[in-house]
Amino acid sequence: MARQASDVEVTRQVLASAVAEHRPEALARALRSLPPADAARVLDSLTPFDLGALVTLLGEAQLAELLENMAAMDAAALIVKLGRAQAADVHEHMAPDDAADVVEELNPLQGEAILVAMDAPEAAEVRALLAYPADSAAGLMTQEMVTVSPELTAEEALAAIRRVAREVETIYYVYVTDEDDRLLGVLSLRELVLAPPETPVGELAHRDLITVRAEADQEVAARLLADRGLLAIPVVDEHDRLLGIVTADDAADVLEEEATEDIERLGGSEPLERPYLRTSVRTLVWKRVRWLLVLFVAEAYTGSVLRHYEDTLAAAVSLAFFIPLLIGTGGNTGSQITTTLTRALAVGDVRFGDLLRVLRKELAAAVVLGAIMALATVLRAWTLGVDVQIGMVVAITAASIVVWSAAVAAVLPLVLRRFGIDPAVVSAPLITTVVDGTGLIIYFSVANWLLGL
Amino acid sequence: MARQASDVEVTRQVLASAVAEHRPEALARALRSLPPADAARVLDSLTPFDLGALVTLLGEAQLAELLENMAAMDAAALIVKLGRAQAADVHEHMAPDDAADVVEELNPLQGEAILVAMDAPEAAEVRALLAYPADSAAGLMTQEMVTVSPELTAEEALAAIRRVAREVETIYYVYVTDEDDRLLGVLSLRELVLAPPETPVGELAHRDLITVRAEADQEVAARLLADRGLLAIPVVDEHDRLLGIVTADDAADVLEEEATEDIERLGGSEPLERPYLRTSVRTLVWKRVRWLLVLFVAEAYTGSVLRHYEDTLAAAVSLAFFIPLLIGTGGNTGSQITTTLTRALAVGDVRFGDLLRVLRKELAAAVVLGAIMALATVLRAWTLGVDVQIGMVVAITAASIVVWSAAVAAVLPLVLRRFGIDPAVVSAPLITTVVDGTGLIIYFSVANWLLGL
Repeated sequence: MARQASDVEVTRQVLASAVAEHRPEALARALRSLPPADAARVLDSLTPFDLGALVTLLGEAQLAELLENMAAMDAAALIVKLGRAQAADVHEHMAPDDAADVVEELNPLQGEAILVAMDAPEAAEVRALLAYPADSAAGLMTQEMVTVSPELTAEEALAAIRRVAREVETIYYVYVTDEDDRLLGVLSLRELVLAPPETPVGELAHRDLITVRAEADQEVAARLLADRGLLAIPVVDEHDRLLGIVTADDAADVLEEEATEDIERLGGSEPLERPYLRTSVRTLVWKRVRWLLVLFVAEAYTGSVLRHYEDTLAAAVSLAFFIPLLIGTGGNTGSQITTTLTRALAVGDVRFGDLLRVLRKELAAAVVLGAIMALATVLRAWTLGVDVQIGMVVAITAASIVVWSAAVAAVLPLVLRRFGIDPAVVSAPLITTVVDGTGLIIYFSVANWLLGL
Repeated sequence: MARQASDVEVTRQVLASAVAEHRPEALARALRSLPPADAARVLDSLTPFDLGALVTLLGEAQLAELLENMAAMDAAALIVKLGRAQAADVHEHMAPDDAADVVEELNPLQGEAILVAMDAPEAAEVRALLAYPADSAAGLMTQEMVTVSPELTAEEALAAIRRVAREVETIYYVYVTDEDDRLLGVLSLRELVLAPPETPVGELAHRDLITVRAEADQEVAARLLADRGLLAIPVVDEHDRLLGIVTADDAADVLEEEATEDIERLGGSEPLERPYLRTSVRTLVWKRVRWLLVLFVAEAYTGSVLRHYEDTLAAAVSLAFFIPLLIGTGGNTGSQITTTLTRALAVGDVRFGDLLRVLRKELAAAVVLGAIMALATVLRAWTLGVDVQIGMVVAITAASIVVWSAAVAAVLPLVLRRFGIDPAVVSAPLITTVVDGTGLIIYFSVANWLLGL
């Protein structure tokens, strides 16, 4: 799997000779043998002239199939290198949902130019999808599905499928709708194949449907598909009219994308929105500097805390030895909890209603972990050769910081989620920062109390 | 989507009345209306006696379908509550890959008892899957696919599919194999439906196949399925013999699972391996304490650094004010980079060969970010009212720490991946810890040099 950059080079040469020798099949095979991201890289490295020649040889339908599997951004980068007529032809051959994604990546003028040059029915389908937010269920759907009316027999339905099979995205589910397009039921091609030929599909169809509303978040649709192991899920409007379907291949992409965004947020950065190597230095800086500054301002508070306890610190400089260790341990505890809970919220394992259960569990774990870390700090104080009293201050602080940090880290993600804020903003760096200042207050309060300063 | 706990209660009551009134269809509908995890919770809350009655009414096939969509652990928890004969019946009705996953969750004696009670052919299929590691492609596969020999016509192949449709996991791909089970090609049910009835399938089949080897990591198979938008991928042995197929519904689960593990590691914890609420306090402590102690030992080094610079610190106590701020900023920078790169490696956007590109990009971003953070620290030093010289020390340190942290965080994940170590172990806490000690050395070296201490 771990392809090296040289594979891309080899494929480029294979492509070049396939173009030179006019062998469209070898060309298609070479491109399909690559992961879509690599195929995008190879095609992107061609000059517009060579790319045009390649598309002519390959045919628009074959290219459309390749582009459907690429990231929309990569596909858009290739589309702009084609002539307008060729670009429009390729778009006509693409599934409308994928075509709409590509148009969204283009600048509005380029997108409009391509839509105008497309055949009217295909262009209308793409325009209909563009009307929905890109991250809604409707933004993800295709309108190319098989619909039949309930009076058709199984045999007639199969004949109908055969007629439209080339046009639709999946023939594996058949949707039964009434004359107002309202969704009555669904049955799989497999059930249709197995049914007695004379049975009306209205009798065969399942009526307890899992559907998703057009305006629902794309993640909701994707997670339903994945959790239920479905190949497609129907998208309906508020009157239960069938608007389209979201297919499983799009769902996997959405779930990957959402996991990537969560991970980037948990690391304390805004999501990059595009593959790392295609992100400019400027964007990297922009996505990161905001959080770095927010965290800096929050962390700056530690300076005030330390200045406040300047006399304590001057009286016992060895207290300073343990500052990074203590606040680090608090940050680590908090970061373990907050990342675990953020993910559990994202996949639906935990909900706001579980708050008390979560808090009880985390506090119980924190008491044990706090005791272990207190012991560890005593050992460390002993090896650093500081006063026994300082060692006691450090140990008590370690245990308290672990428990305090656990409480904050357990409550914060669930409460944020309750208020509709993505809990992934409670990143490891954020929880560390929150615990740093409060941890220092705990440290010096314990020190003043025990050392009598 | 955000179902409340009370929904579970309502469904429990619906189930109870459906059982009492002997209405198996209402029962099946109520259970199917729930997300699989909730259905598991509801069923788990029944007594073994009630569960047995429910299964008898519902039928083993219906229950098998429900269990297939549940997490294997949840399904196993239900299976152990059934009588041995009933458990074996349910296993016979499950897809062998899902049945094997459940058996793996049971204790070996229970698992063996169920396998012995199953019909021989079904038991043999499950045993064959158990022979492969659970996290390999083969561990994920089902052997229930449609295979045909190349001489069959399209029409004969369709008839063959109709005969086996009830037994197989997917009829949407048809695999063409020779007499030694070697995989020759594949064609979709859609292509078969559209083909002229008399054409031999050997001519229709695609021969440039995407396959996966039995011993490949399950993540490789899952990512291929998702990237190519396939419904299933064939699993072959070293002689290209078809062993089974991995279907798209399993792929989505694997990718979710792998993302969860990565996120938990990035938070500085061992992966929990089961849903959060089902994880005991003891397991939480065990998964976390190892990393907490490793990080503690690594962080303990900061105590030695600070003791080494005790005189500098005593001479200028205000230097201590900035310790959390400076090492915090270094940790934040590192954590942003390492989480982004770990994810980019996981989804295949970045490889070891990109090391120099990544390093160049990150250093360029770090120089800009370092300058911004230096400015921020100067402002903070001014508001804290410390000496101008201390302010300069802090600013130079801030810029240096950001660049240093970026270099470490950019290189470490790629190098670890190169040596086959999961880069997610370079968690936000780990990179923070690494940067803490070295950051302090930078800080006090700059201080000694500029302040002439």
